[in-house]
Amino acid sequence: MSLSRFLDLADLAPEEIRDLLALAERLQQHPEPQALAGKILGLIFLNPSLRTLASMQAGMARLGGSSFVITPGQGTWALETRSGVAMDGDAAEHIREGLPVLASYCDALGIRAFAAGRDLAMDVADTSFKAMAELIQKPLINLESAINHPCQSLADWKTLDDLRIAPRTKFVLSWVPHPRALPLAVPAATAHMAALRGHDVVVLRPDGFALPSPVMDRVHAAAKLSGGSVTETDDRVAALKGAHIVYAKEWGSTRHYGDADGDGALRRHLSDWQLNEQSFANATPNCKLMHCLPVRRNVAVAEALLDSPRSVVLHEAHNRLVVQMAVLYRLLK
Amino acid sequence: MSLSRFLDLADLAPEEIRDLLALAERLQQHPEPQALAGKILGLIFLNPSLRTLASMQAGMARLGGSSFVITPGQGTWALETRSGVAMDGDAAEHIREGLPVLASYCDALGIRAFAAGRDLAMDVADTSFKAMAELIQKPLINLESAINHPCQSLADWKTLDDLRIAPRTKFVLSWVPHPRALPLAVPAATAHMAALRGHDVVVLRPDGFALPSPVMDRVHAAAKLSGGSVTETDDRVAALKGAHIVYAKEWGSTRHYGDADGDGALRRHLSDWQLNEQSFANATPNCKLMHCLPVRRNVAVAEALLDSPRSVVLHEAHNRLVVQMAVLYRLLK
Amino acid sequence: MSLSRFLDLADLAPEEIRDLLALAERLQQHPEPQALAGKILGLIFLNPSLRTLASMQAGMARLGGSSFVITPGQGTWALETRSGVAMDGDAAEHIREGLPVLASYCDALGIRAFAAGRDLAMDVADTSFKAMAELIQKPLINLESAINHPCQSLADWKTLDDLRIAPRTKFVLSWVPHPRALPLAVPAATAHMAALRGHDVVVLRPDGFALPSPVMDRVHAAAKLSGGSVTETDDRVAALKGAHIVYAKEWGSTRHYGDADGDGALRRHLSDWQLNEQSFANATPNCKLMHCLPVRRNVAVAEALLDSPRSVVLHEAHNRLVVQMAVLYRLLK
Repeated sequence: MSLSRFLDLADLAPEEIRDLLALAERLQQHPEPQALAGKILGLIFLNPSLRTLASMQAGMARLGGSSFVITPGQGTWALETRSGVAMDGDAAEHIREGLPVLASYCDALGIRAFAAGRDLAMDVADTSFKAMAELIQKPLINLESAINHPCQSLADWKTLDDLRIAPRTKFVLSWVPHPRALPLAVPAATAHMAALRGHDVVVLRPDGFALPSPVMDRVHAAAKLSGGSVTETDDRVAALKGAHIVYAKEWGSTRHYGDADGDGALRRHLSDWQLNEQSFANATPNCKLMHCLPVRRNVAVAEALLDSPRSVVLHEAHNRLVVQMAVLYRLLK
Repeated sequence: MSLSRFLDLADLAPEEIRDLLALAERLQQHPEPQALAGKILGLIFLNPSLRTLASMQAGMARLGGSSFVITPGQGTWALETRSGVAMDGDAAEHIREGLPVLASYCDALGIRAFAAGRDLAMDVADTSFKAMAELIQKPLINLESAINHPCQSLADWKTLDDLRIAPRTKFVLSWVPHPRALPLAVPAATAHMAALRGHDVVVLRPDGFALPSPVMDRVHAAAKLSGGSVTETDDRVAALKGAHIVYAKEWGSTRHYGDADGDGALRRHLSDWQLNEQSFANATPNCKLMHCLPVRRNVAVAEALLDSPRSVVLHEAHNRLVVQMAVLYRLLK
Repeated sequence: MSLSRFLDLADLAPEEIRDLLALAERLQQHPEPQALAGKILGLIFLNPSLRTLASMQAGMARLGGSSFVITPGQGTWALETRSGVAMDGDAAEHIREGLPVLASYCDALGIRAFAAGRDLAMDVADTSFKAMAELIQKPLINLESAINHPCQSLADWKTLDDLRIAPRTKFVLSWVPHPRALPLAVPAATAHMAALRGHDVVVLRPDGFALPSPVMDRVHAAAKLSGGSVTETDDRVAALKGAHIVYAKEWGSTRHYGDADGDGALRRHLSDWQLNEQSFANATPNCKLMHCLPVRRNVAVAEALLDSPRSVVLHEAHNRLVVQMAVLYRLLK
């Protein structure tokens, strides 16, 4: 089996996902330190990163390959992404030159490009990332786009496998507070992944924070495929009752998308959506807390909960390395 | 054949340039993934970079070597370059310590240090870069200095070879607009390279933007050596007529060097120097557009022209990797 | 012999220090370019670096390993280090997640975290660095903490060995001026190292700049162990008389710790503490100048002195690479 791109879990057949997870497991048990000898991965970060930046470099190195990192606007020219404009502003280079050039220096490329956070329809359609992807003929990895984060989702899937969480169990994606209006990429990707894995997915979010219809449509389609289910609610007590997994995530208001004031006003009274041990009172006893990180302690999730055995956030983060090595292997071997 | 430094094409005998181009071709056809195993390249960027930053790291990796990147002022102390000053300002470290120390950690060093853009004579004499080069005993690569960019020129030479452009053909270096007064390194290096390759070089630039005499003297000397010719003009129609190559490049006014106001006033009425398909009306039918990148779309060059088959800018950029691998090989093998 | 951590020279038995120095020497004479093949070093820089950043990457590469660099606040989220706070400010990630995650991607970790410079007792106790170290189970290297810099000290020890400076000789740690109140890490580590090596250590500093008692207690304990001696003085003439080594170092006032105004007022009249050739008038003829770099020319040390044969600062800096390779070898082989 081989892959040409890793942009969206929805692009993969179920057996391709199973293959990647099995390969990830195999490479953990039986390292292949020369598998990608001579191969080069280019990493383009239009936004900050810790896990992705470190784990992608480490993953290539553990397979014998190399990587280079480009951070436009920081040591590298700022990149223009819009078409047709007269480039008389800050950006010195256009992605139409910058991306193909970088692709020509390496064997595979990874790109991180967060949502612009102004136009909901554009961000939900991943317009900007798709325009970038079209410029690149080489194997390409989505390192988090406006509406997707397939590396995170694959790592989370493996974490659920590692923990032997059965597919037909209650998976609650719970909105949690944050000082700023964060992108929809992780909540959208997480709900989709959980539905695709066959969970009974509950999207728990306050009024004004519903995930956009095209996102939920994808989640419903995935549930239909896998035999899972999907519901949405703002009732925290009902949602958390009997939960096997609570996946905490911050995101901005979709009612006031791109309007920081409207979003801020809506969030002002929601600080009690912070998750703590009490939130798990009616969950299943062994219910786990997941989060993609970074997490704001005592804002999104209480410190004591993050430091308790319920939390599997470090396990998830380590699985980023584990599954990405499988992705790199399938793209480059 | 081996090299000790790669600072200026003018330092190389014609057979050394031919050797580098042939080696570049050979390494493309027959990779040597272990040629530089164990070798380390230090890369010092006093200015932003995309192509150089990525292609130098990729080139070392493709030859089995490693590299590290130092960006003074960003994760690393700002470096003082002036002699004799009391260092009571922002710069925490002097190049007299910083550069020899970095050289002592690697097998070869590359340095990028743009023109300060204040004193034309100093920049044309490459005073600052030469002072740095004197501090380093190891193999050294000029990654673009105030007045030179030999990696770009060698890549452009190879591109002309790849395209089978005959030496005695018309090569027009055409000034194009830019929001800021850019350095003279690429226009100076490009005119010199084209003359050295034996072209009939036309330097086309508006009033106030003539290249400095010491630069043109070098170009004339190169033409004499190769049997080419050199002319300068501000007549766009005459210059572009019959052109085989149009090399677009932005640079600041040499009449108002270091005076942003004077430069700006001069450039204000020159936006129609932007190149577009019409500019090629009287060129040879197969005339190509070259540019070193980054390029400001719809400011320096029209978008449609950059996206047309005339443009070989991506080919040039890829050749940066190709020729630099030959340079690294000759310096380090 | 093997090491699990390299955090403080005081943690090592004398024979472990001798072993590291001998191994450093052996690896210089007989390189082992595959010793750490497949191993990955994570490097976390909470503060700027030149020598450490370059030499750690170069050292891993020379031993066949790889490394990645994380610079929180620059391409990576800013990291919160305080416990128990509500993270509603700039820092997006807490070290309690960030550090274990990064550790899980590599085989050893290095961390640079300067003094906060507000609370002298906390900085002297290295509270912040120790809290970080507790979060990490993997081999760990102190790349300079609030009060220690063991890589620098080991490099300096080797430099003294290379120069055949006998242990029972006069080693003067001399305060020198700097525009800002610099941390105590290097003076504290240097005085301790010199005492541990058996020198007659003189800490020469102006009124208001005495090293804190816990620091001096460690220095005295080291001298007792080795048979050396320790004195403190503000008498420059007496201190420098008969010196075999003068180690110049800048640090902030400990009387006005964290108070920039008080520190500035104290330093205002101390510019003549700058070292120059005259300072060595009554030293031994062959007395050497040491400094950890970066150094402010003509502020801390006169240019002519730095460029004279007395100065061994470049030798010291090169030894950073040499001894760190031994440390990496013992931690990872």
